[in-house]
Amino acid sequence: MNRIITVSREFGSGGREFGKRLAEQYVEQLVEKKPVIAFPIHIGRSFYPPANPVLEQTKSVVLEQQRIIKELAEKSDCVIVGRCADYILREYDPFRFFVYADMESKLKRCHRKAPGDEHLTDKELKRKIALIDKNRAAYYDFWTGGKWGLKLNYDLCINTTHTAIKEIAAALSKMF
Amino acid sequence: MNRIITVSREFGSGGREFGKRLAEQYVEQLVEKKPVIAFPIHIGRSFYPPANPVLEQTKSVVLEQQRIIKELAEKSDCVIVGRCADYILREYDPFRFFVYADMESKLKRCHRKAPGDEHLTDKELKRKIALIDKNRAAYYDFWTGGKWGLKLNYDLCINTTHTAIKEIAAALSKMF
Repeated sequence: MNRIITVSREFGSGGREFGKRLAEQYVEQLVEKKPVIAFPIHIGRSFYPPANPVLEQTKSVVLEQQRIIKELAEKSDCVIVGRCADYILREYDPFRFFVYADMESKLKRCHRKAPGDEHLTDKELKRKIALIDKNRAAYYDFWTGGKWGLKLNYDLCINTTHTAIKEIAAALSKMF
Repeated sequence: MNRIITVSREFGSGGREFGKRLAEQYVEQLVEKKPVIAFPIHIGRSFYPPANPVLEQTKSVVLEQQRIIKELAEKSDCVIVGRCADYILREYDPFRFFVYADMESKLKRCHRKAPGDEHLTDKELKRKIALIDKNRAAYYDFWTGGKWGLKLNYDLCINTTHTAIKEIAAALSKMF
């Protein structure tokens, strides 16, 4: 069975960067061990659920998404960020990360990564972050019947407030 | 400043084993890098708080314990399991682990590690585990004003339900 790694994350916590770095490290390691390897490792792109998951997302769209995610998991080892992949791929025995951070550190990261034409105050950005996470939680809880962010639902929860993503991704890639 | 690692843990989750293995791996790594090293790495022993932290533990005992823990932190790099060390050593910028697992896996581990003369049923053991963790939480919350087990209070939370402690300790030791 392919090695499946899922990354759930709070908005602004660096979960996507973690997933990307983990995948890169993992590939590097595999290449060292066995030079011929079935590429590619897939890294899912960020996914922003709609404000109201019930009204704005039809079941058929969700099912199609699930189908694609399962197809990726069948094809090769993969790191998938977001998209309830931890739940969708539960039969594949994924290693499930949850990435989070305190609000101050998420504000800093979001300001740093903001598009040039976005000029939000701390207060506005804080509201945006809270809203996106509220929607992620609602989306996850609605489609999975689980509880987004509850630590028992994950194998490893990483607080990026004081931890360098680069270093922790490098260390953890040795596990897979 | 010395490298301080603290491990908080649910009873039966393997937190002490994790701390021990992490310290061993860490020492091994340091010895490889620089053959002469200031031993020892200290590993705190398990600590069972009393049933009622307010009545049964005087402040002077707690202060003495804090003094000892700070002394360890001043002396050398250390891994300390339990004892609110994450809070007591907060000025030393510790890396804070929380180790947890689901109840079924904690039951299994406790049965396996039980002294030969202990024959608890699953129900009794479950009650014991729940009580010890309730006391740990009460003790922590009382002395620190914080919230035991809340993931934002830790840098890395490890669920040992499906994860081999040996492997994760080996991987994470590379980070320090």
